Amino acid sequence: MSQDCIFCKIIDGEIPSAKVYEDEDVYAFLDISQVTKGHTLVIPKQHTQDIYHTDSDVAEKLFARVPKIANALKETYEPIGLNVLNNNEEPAGQSVFHLHIHLIPRYGKQDGFGAKWEAHSDQYSTEDLQSIAAEINNNIQG
Amino acid sequence: MSQDCIFCKIIDGEIPSAKVYEDEDVYAFLDISQVTKGHTLVIPKQHTQDIYHTDSDVAEKLFARVPKIANALKETYEPIGLNVLNNNEEPAGQSVFHLHIHLIPRYGKQDGFGAKWEAHSDQYSTEDLQSIAAEINNNIQG
Repeated sequence: MSQDCIFCKIIDGEIPSAKVYEDEDVYAFLDISQVTKGHTLVIPKQHTQDIYHTDSDVAEKLFARVPKIANALKETYEPIGLNVLNNNEEPAGQSVFHLHIHLIPRYGKQDGFGAKWEAHSDQYSTEDLQSIAAEINNNIQG
Repeated sequence: MSQDCIFCKIIDGEIPSAKVYEDEDVYAFLDISQVTKGHTLVIPKQHTQDIYHTDSDVAEKLFARVPKIANALKETYEPIGLNVLNNNEEPAGQSVFHLHIHLIPRYGKQDGFGAKWEAHSDQYSTEDLQSIAAEINNNIQG
């Protein structure tokens, strides 16, 4: 537990939440912003700041629970789609620095969530893409 | 392998890709749209349509690889943030029906990606949230 972390306090029960699911490794609760109805956060009980600082075993336990929570959302509210989103660092939209995965059920184009998505396919040749992929691959550890 | 799936054909080498990472369970390659530089897709080798149809063991293996690929992106291009996104069903932005996780490095507000994010905190009382959470919880299987 991290002393100043609001999500650690939620897991601990010190701050109340609308709990959707809990087991030994993972806690899920409603995001109070309710970007769409049923908007849920899934978090690891072990404090970790963001995806960069997360051990693979914490990541795998966290994501292992996502399909069943996603299916419960689908069963409950029959959304027409679901966005699963994890924001890392403030410029990407992270505001609480305890790793969390948003499950955002979708009900239509005007439902509270949407993604700006600009394709830049015309700016990269096949060789450019191979070069970028090789650069990233060179930096993968383990 | 699913016969008509473009991502299964990429894994199989039948369709070329800019490969970022591969192991026995997971394949990662550049999204040709390159919403931002280094935009990578991480997919399970086992064909699965979307998060709803994904077994927890496939989900956990998939997400276990995300931290190291995320760190390689950070090391390579020093983005100021990273969005990890999985779209399920067409209204949520899914266009290829083989589960995939987008890793979108962020470089600024005008970099090609962004999320519309409308808070509806004022529309739900504490009791409403408890009721919604209980409804979802009731539908979690296993």
